[in-house]
Amino acid sequence: MSWTLTEEHLADLARGAALLGTGGGGDPHVGQLLVRQAIREHGPVLVLDPTEVADDALVIPTAQMGAPTVVFEKLPAGTEPVAALRALEYHLDRTADATMPIECGGINSMIPLLVGALTGLPVVDADGMGRAFPELQMETFSVYGVPGSPMAIAGEGGETVVIDTRADNARMEWLARGVTVRLGGVAHIAEYAMSGADVRRTAIPRTLSLALSVGRAIREARQANTDPVARLAEVLADTLYGHLRVLFRGKVVDVERRTEAGFARGRARVAAMGGATGQLELVFQNEHLVALVDGEVRCVVPDLVCVLDAEQAEPITTESLRYGQRVTVVGISTPELMRSPQALATFGPAAFGLPYAFRPVEELVPA
Amino acid sequence: MSWTLTEEHLADLARGAALLGTGGGGDPHVGQLLVRQAIREHGPVLVLDPTEVADDALVIPTAQMGAPTVVFEKLPAGTEPVAALRALEYHLDRTADATMPIECGGINSMIPLLVGALTGLPVVDADGMGRAFPELQMETFSVYGVPGSPMAIAGEGGETVVIDTRADNARMEWLARGVTVRLGGVAHIAEYAMSGADVRRTAIPRTLSLALSVGRAIREARQANTDPVARLAEVLADTLYGHLRVLFRGKVVDVERRTEAGFARGRARVAAMGGATGQLELVFQNEHLVALVDGEVRCVVPDLVCVLDAEQAEPITTESLRYGQRVTVVGISTPELMRSPQALATFGPAAFGLPYAFRPVEELVPA
Repeated sequence: MSWTLTEEHLADLARGAALLGTGGGGDPHVGQLLVRQAIREHGPVLVLDPTEVADDALVIPTAQMGAPTVVFEKLPAGTEPVAALRALEYHLDRTADATMPIECGGINSMIPLLVGALTGLPVVDADGMGRAFPELQMETFSVYGVPGSPMAIAGEGGETVVIDTRADNARMEWLARGVTVRLGGVAHIAEYAMSGADVRRTAIPRTLSLALSVGRAIREARQANTDPVARLAEVLADTLYGHLRVLFRGKVVDVERRTEAGFARGRARVAAMGGATGQLELVFQNEHLVALVDGEVRCVVPDLVCVLDAEQAEPITTESLRYGQRVTVVGISTPELMRSPQALATFGPAAFGLPYAFRPVEELVPA
Repeated sequence: MSWTLTEEHLADLARGAALLGTGGGGDPHVGQLLVRQAIREHGPVLVLDPTEVADDALVIPTAQMGAPTVVFEKLPAGTEPVAALRALEYHLDRTADATMPIECGGINSMIPLLVGALTGLPVVDADGMGRAFPELQMETFSVYGVPGSPMAIAGEGGETVVIDTRADNARMEWLARGVTVRLGGVAHIAEYAMSGADVRRTAIPRTLSLALSVGRAIREARQANTDPVARLAEVLADTLYGHLRVLFRGKVVDVERRTEAGFARGRARVAAMGGATGQLELVFQNEHLVALVDGEVRCVVPDLVCVLDAEQAEPITTESLRYGQRVTVVGISTPELMRSPQALATFGPAAFGLPYAFRPVEELVPA
């Protein structure tokens, strides 16, 4: 069913998207401000269920690209993703019937809504990452055969770049990353233009709705003075993300972070508190890639590693991680579409150079 | 007058283009091999005098972009500049009536001839540098108001990139350089699409003919056992490049060269021989930028600093400079169109960060 997204949804959606962003994807709160303003000026946004998109409709996903550390410091004007969409429409000589997220985690849950509000286009309730990932080929769209290019990039100075690497989406990422670095570390993009039929075949469905449910559940649990993490597990149990495991509770004792080649890379350590022993280590490239407890893998990509503040269960992005924060680290299982051999080849541990085989979080940490 | 370029012209043209390349522009001998093959397969190339191009004709210049050090090691297949031309035509939704060099020095004298041979398009006898320069905004086209973008870039893997920075040609260079680095350090481009009227208003005319005359003069002087440098001075006296000065004769004693950010940068020193004292220093960024004799400027961009081997007057590119070479270093005056205040702002000494004011070589070194 389609639904209408209004201002009232944005805070919950942003919170849920921050959680699904697994520490990356850019802070959705920044995007929320832009969408709020656009909805006030232009009205609410129609969100289409993937089943409602015509087979031959042209869906052009829109997104922001860049290191979260830079996104945090360099706010977009809001018109850049529309400029990217228009540049791709011009190149394709065809207008879009809808836009869609390429990732449902982080700020990229918000960018298509911004485009929807500014242009009047509906937004499809689905995405190609089912979370956030740092690179453009790390898409279920790509895994299941949709070419990412031609893609368009728009910079803050009105520059546009159209890249066509035909079926080679990793090459597209490589070139687009180079352009984004030269545009100052952040840019806006339109890519993976596809038919409605391809949306249904390759996208993770209803991830905007999921982000909204997740964000709402955390808020409602807080208001009811119940455990937000327990409530989160209940909500997820009925979705494609069925399993939530608490991996660790403790205090952030070390964060090492650097922006290199257009990515925020680093590690963080969380130590047990209150006389308990043990330590959790996180490795991230924009997003958290793996959680190790005392050296043992407890959750690894594409499953979600989420760092929440210990009291309110507010998701903490990698660029906001600080010494001394009290945190709960949870692992969440991803949909089966993201765990196929070809999906793991694209965004499993080996795709990030990690020396661990993928194992589902529900096996690594029994209930 | 238009003329037909055949295989027989290529060796002289390449020699002349190497001289006008002032050490950079990529080795034209590599391009010569590609053009020779294309002419053998497809026939000769029609070279149009700029006066013969219709006012409303669409001229799309084609070129190679990259550090000469890389070009030297990574030969193009030959079809890449045509792919760039086609990508720009597709973007503009208009076909070219002719192609043209963006620079007459180095390999870029040859690339449009390659395109001409492969596509049947005529090549306009003019260019936008009147020599070679390392950056895309360093064009008389740009100085006199022709936008460089939209431009197209083609990589060896069939990738295409279209960049549109509107009137900002320095921004275009910045983004295109980033793409070229990611494409492996060399790429082919189509840019500064313009009307025939703009060619006449902004281009340096008849520089392909000039390269041919220069190359031929050197060869004929060798064959006649006369001084090639003296013959060169005679030939140039009747052109827009009226003044040639011998700056120094000696032996290369030091070359410092590095490829960074997509450019070949460095310095070289030439010491006097046979009991004479004195030393010449060259500074280059792909091309020679300045020649200093005992610390005093003798020739500086946009005037041409050319290093010739002492016996045969064969031009030596910066990537071929070696310890021990016996060389004659000459300075050549550039056309007035390249010495205007706005031209000097774009490719004079300050544009390269050099702390010298421009002074014409004919003043710095009286006859």
